Amino acid sequence: VVTSGASAVAIEKGNYRHFMQKEIFEQPTVVAQTLRSYIRQVDQSVALPQIDFDVTGVSRITIVACGTSFYAGMVAKYWIEHFARLPVDIDVASEFRYREPVLEPGGLALFISQSGETADTLAALRHCKDAGQKIAVVVNVPTSTMAREADLLLPTHAGPEIGVASTKAFTCQLAVLAALAAHLAVKRGHMDRAEETEIVKHLLEAPACLNAALAYDEDIAEMAHLIAPARDVLYLGRGPDYPLALEGALKLKEISYIHAEGYASGEMKHGPIALIDDAVPVVVIAPSGPLFEKTVSNMQEVRARGGKVVLISDRDGIDEAGDGCIATIEMPKVHPLIAPLVYAVPVQLLAYHVACVKGTDVDQPRNLAKSVTVE
Amino acid sequence: VVTSGASAVAIEKGNYRHFMQKEIFEQPTVVAQTLRSYIRQVDQSVALPQIDFDVTGVSRITIVACGTSFYAGMVAKYWIEHFARLPVDIDVASEFRYREPVLEPGGLALFISQSGETADTLAALRHCKDAGQKIAVVVNVPTSTMAREADLLLPTHAGPEIGVASTKAFTCQLAVLAALAAHLAVKRGHMDRAEETEIVKHLLEAPACLNAALAYDEDIAEMAHLIAPARDVLYLGRGPDYPLALEGALKLKEISYIHAEGYASGEMKHGPIALIDDAVPVVVIAPSGPLFEKTVSNMQEVRARGGKVVLISDRDGIDEAGDGCIATIEMPKVHPLIAPLVYAVPVQLLAYHVACVKGTDVDQPRNLAKSVTVE
Repeated sequence: VVTSGASAVAIEKGNYRHFMQKEIFEQPTVVAQTLRSYIRQVDQSVALPQIDFDVTGVSRITIVACGTSFYAGMVAKYWIEHFARLPVDIDVASEFRYREPVLEPGGLALFISQSGETADTLAALRHCKDAGQKIAVVVNVPTSTMAREADLLLPTHAGPEIGVASTKAFTCQLAVLAALAAHLAVKRGHMDRAEETEIVKHLLEAPACLNAALAYDEDIAEMAHLIAPARDVLYLGRGPDYPLALEGALKLKEISYIHAEGYASGEMKHGPIALIDDAVPVVVIAPSGPLFEKTVSNMQEVRARGGKVVLISDRDGIDEAGDGCIATIEMPKVHPLIAPLVYAVPVQLLAYHVACVKGTDVDQPRNLAKSVTVE
Repeated sequence: VVTSGASAVAIEKGNYRHFMQKEIFEQPTVVAQTLRSYIRQVDQSVALPQIDFDVTGVSRITIVACGTSFYAGMVAKYWIEHFARLPVDIDVASEFRYREPVLEPGGLALFISQSGETADTLAALRHCKDAGQKIAVVVNVPTSTMAREADLLLPTHAGPEIGVASTKAFTCQLAVLAALAAHLAVKRGHMDRAEETEIVKHLLEAPACLNAALAYDEDIAEMAHLIAPARDVLYLGRGPDYPLALEGALKLKEISYIHAEGYASGEMKHGPIALIDDAVPVVVIAPSGPLFEKTVSNMQEVRARGGKVVLISDRDGIDEAGDGCIATIEMPKVHPLIAPLVYAVPVQLLAYHVACVKGTDVDQPRNLAKSVTVE
C-alpha cells in the first residue's frame, strides 16, 4: 500500500486540525514521559543521568540558546538561582559567540535546543568546550550533534515536533530544567530530603495541571476573537512569568503575524506604556503569589490609560484583580516551580486560536524554518 | 519682571522646536563636558574620581538600571568584558530586586539613572549594599539619593534633561561607561599605555563625530516620511549595536507611538521574521567591522521576504550593502568604542522626525513621566 504524503500527514494529525494543536494537547503525556527519566519513583527523589563530573564543584552556569529555547533558559535562571543559589548567566547564542564572553574555570555551560543542531547554539557550545567549560545540553533529538558533544546529556522526550512554532518541546525543556534546578539544590545543600520530596510531588502533578489548563481550550478559542483584530499586543509578566510573556508574544508573532511584544511588567512605565490605547490588548501573566500585587499595579497603570487587559491567573488572582479586564483565563493554582509549564498552555492556545481566526498557515508560518541550521 | 512659565520655556528652547531636539543637538557639547571629568589632558590618560576601594580586586560587575539607562548598561557590558575581561551581569531593576540574585563577595554593583531617583533602581541599590557589594552609580543629578548612597559616584554632565524621552543623558552615560571600561582595563593589566592613549584619542574625537552625525539631520527628516505611515518597525543590531537597536525602538515607541521592537540580528530567524512584509520597515544598525557581514546576511534574509530596510552604517558599509535598501544613513567611520555614542544620534533623530511628521507631543508623550519614582 502506498499512501501519499498528504494522507500520511492527515493520519498523523489524528483528530486535530493542525500539528501545533496536536502537540499542544500532547503536553501532559510528553511532560510525564520526560519527567519519568528525571524522577526516581522508589524514593521520590530527583535523579539526573550519570554525570562523570562533580556538579557540586560548579561555580557558575552559563545558559545559551535561541528563540523559544532561550526563554526556557530564562525560566531556568530564575529557578537555579532561587533553589540552588548558583549564579546563572544567560545569552542568546548569536550574541554570545561573538561577544568574547569571560568564562571562569569551574563553569558549566548549558545549551538548549529542540533539534540539537541550531547553528549559533552549536558554535557557542564548541566555543565553551574550547574554553574548558563542562558542557550540558537539553535536546529533543538524542542523536543530534549537540547530544554527541555534551558531557551531560539531558534529553527531553517530547517526540517529533512538526509544527514550526515550538510548544511541547518548550514544556518538556522546562520539566528537565526544573529537575536540574532541584538536583543542583539538593547537591549544593540548599534543599533537604523533605523539600525534595515536596518538589517531586509538585513535578508529578504537572501533567494533571497541564490537562486542567487544556480544559480551557474552548474559552480561549472564544476569546481569540477579541485579540485577532489587533495589530499590536503586549504581554507582561514578572519573575519566571517574564520569559513566559516573551514566549507568548513570540508564539503570537510566529503564527498570527500580529506584532506582539513581551515585557517585564516593571519596565512598562519606562517607555512601552506610551503605546497603550484601546487598540492594543495587554495580556498579563500573573499567578497569585508574592509578585502578584506588583504586577497588578502595573496592570492598573495600563487600564488607567484605556488599555484592554486579558488576565491569566488562578482563582485567587482573578477574584482579586479580574474586574475590568476584557477577559480572564483561569489556571489551576500550582506550585511556583511548575507554574511556567502550566501557564505556557494558555499562551500557546491563545496564539493558536488567534491564528485560526486569522486563517494563517499555523504549521508552516511564512518566512520560518523549523530548525535554524544556518547562522 | 514676571515671565509666564510658557515664555520661560520658549526662551529655554532657543531656536529649537522641542526640548528633545535641543537636547539631541546639545550632545557634542555635553559629551565633551562629561569626558573632561574622566580624561587627564596632561598625560592623555583615563581618570576616574577618587575611589576609596581597590578596583583591581573587583571580581564581577552587576549592572542594574531601567529603560534607556538599562540599554546604556548593556553597551557597557560588551565594553567591560571586551576591554577589561571582567564578567558583567546585567538586569532590569524591577526584575533584579525580586529575583533573589546571588551576589558574590568582591562584587561591584553599578546603577545607572538619569534622575538618580528611579524607584526600582534605588531599591536594587540598597539590596546590593545590604549584600556587601561596592556601589557605583552613573547619575545626571549629583545631589540625588543614588549619588548620596554610592561608594563611587560617576556623574554625567548632561545638564537638565527636559524631554521625557532621554537622549543626551544616554550618550553622556555611554561616555562615562566607556571611560570606566578603559580604566578597568588599565588597572587590570589588559590595556597598556599606548592603547590607553589611543583610546583617549578616540574618546576625545567623540564630540566631533557626534557633530558629523548631526549633520544628517535634514536627510533623516526627509526619510522620516517613509517610516511615519508604518504601524510596526523592527530595529536590528549585533554586539554593542544590539542595545542601540533596543534604544532606537524605545525612542520611536515613546514619542511616535509606533510599535517598534529591537532585536539581536541573529534572533530574527527564530520567530520575528514571520512579521516581515512590505509594511514593516526594518532599521539595521551596522557599522562596518567584524560583525558587519553577519548582520548583512540577516538583512538579506529580511529583504528576500519583501522587507524594506533602512541601513545605518558608514561609507564602507553602505558601499557594500546599501543597494536595495529603501534608505541609508551614513555615519562617520569611528572606533568601535565610540560607535554606540555616534550611532545613537541617527536613531534619536529618526524617532524625533517621525514623531514630528505624526504631530505627537514630542516633549510630553502620552502616558509617560520623566522619572519613575514609583515602582
